Amino acid sequence: MELKEAIEKRASVRGFTDDPVPDELVMEMLRLGAQAPSAGNLQARDFIVVRGAETKAKLAKAAFGQDFVERAPVVVVCCANLSRIRNYGIRGTDLYCLQDVAASVENMMLYVTSQGFGSCWVGAFDEVQVSRILELPENVRPVVLLPVGMPKEPQRKTPRLKLETLVHNEKW
Amino acid sequence: MELKEAIEKRASVRGFTDDPVPDELVMEMLRLGAQAPSAGNLQARDFIVVRGAETKAKLAKAAFGQDFVERAPVVVVCCANLSRIRNYGIRGTDLYCLQDVAASVENMMLYVTSQGFGSCWVGAFDEVQVSRILELPENVRPVVLLPVGMPKEPQRKTPRLKLETLVHNEKW
Repeated sequence: MELKEAIEKRASVRGFTDDPVPDELVMEMLRLGAQAPSAGNLQARDFIVVRGAETKAKLAKAAFGQDFVERAPVVVVCCANLSRIRNYGIRGTDLYCLQDVAASVENMMLYVTSQGFGSCWVGAFDEVQVSRILELPENVRPVVLLPVGMPKEPQRKTPRLKLETLVHNEKW
Repeated sequence: MELKEAIEKRASVRGFTDDPVPDELVMEMLRLGAQAPSAGNLQARDFIVVRGAETKAKLAKAAFGQDFVERAPVVVVCCANLSRIRNYGIRGTDLYCLQDVAASVENMMLYVTSQGFGSCWVGAFDEVQVSRILELPENVRPVVLLPVGMPKEPQRKTPRLKLETLVHNEKW
């Protein structure tokens, strides 16, 4: 799929069919996610691929009952790696590694869209609970849950603010 | 350009020719950036398009002397809008709006690459100085400087960690 089409087509998908998500698709998605830029090329991000029903149910609960997390065939938990970014100090842990994860998530969502699948960027969850469920070490912070599956319904794009509202010339 | 090709081709470009960057390219880049997902579709991000030599010189200085910022025909300063995200509390201001900006920056970098141009994600700068230079209101936080131009040299991709290092199955 063309880049522009993928960007324009990508939308939050919260309803999934039972169609499986092939391992090859997940691995290619992760490979392309890892191509995203990162501060100092430190790649301060890790990904946990979850397919187990029990774990997905726990994740949905940790996401305050967002049940679609559980119903996706696969959930990729995207984490910031605070050790790998530590040379950058507080700016590294509070900004760079969060950006590094986010850029890779966007790559992954675009790729998923280009393959006819759907995903949803889930940010509302209890990080401590998710860390416990996945047995994450202390230096690894989960920041995005990314359920992936075949969309039940056609993807519907939400409206955007006018560019004039967001874009400023030379200064504010 | 195909999505995959854009993702694989994108690399940090720090040397630019004098070729101009058309306004149409910048506007299309911003339009596609705004298509990125955002928490609650609040789109808590703003963009300042800077072409003025004097302002670019000041930005380069605020970026601790990263001179290539000054030499790019255009610099897009990408900001988190703390007011637009305020309903989400601290998680909104410390995480969501940073992710929202980052996802849009990735879209923009991919588009720039697809058009034969180059860019570089600059995160190391003094936010207070940049805010002063651009007269940003208090609720707007600059988090990425994105210089854009025609690459002087072929883009060279930096190596990536092995996927086995980054990817975990079911749990850590």
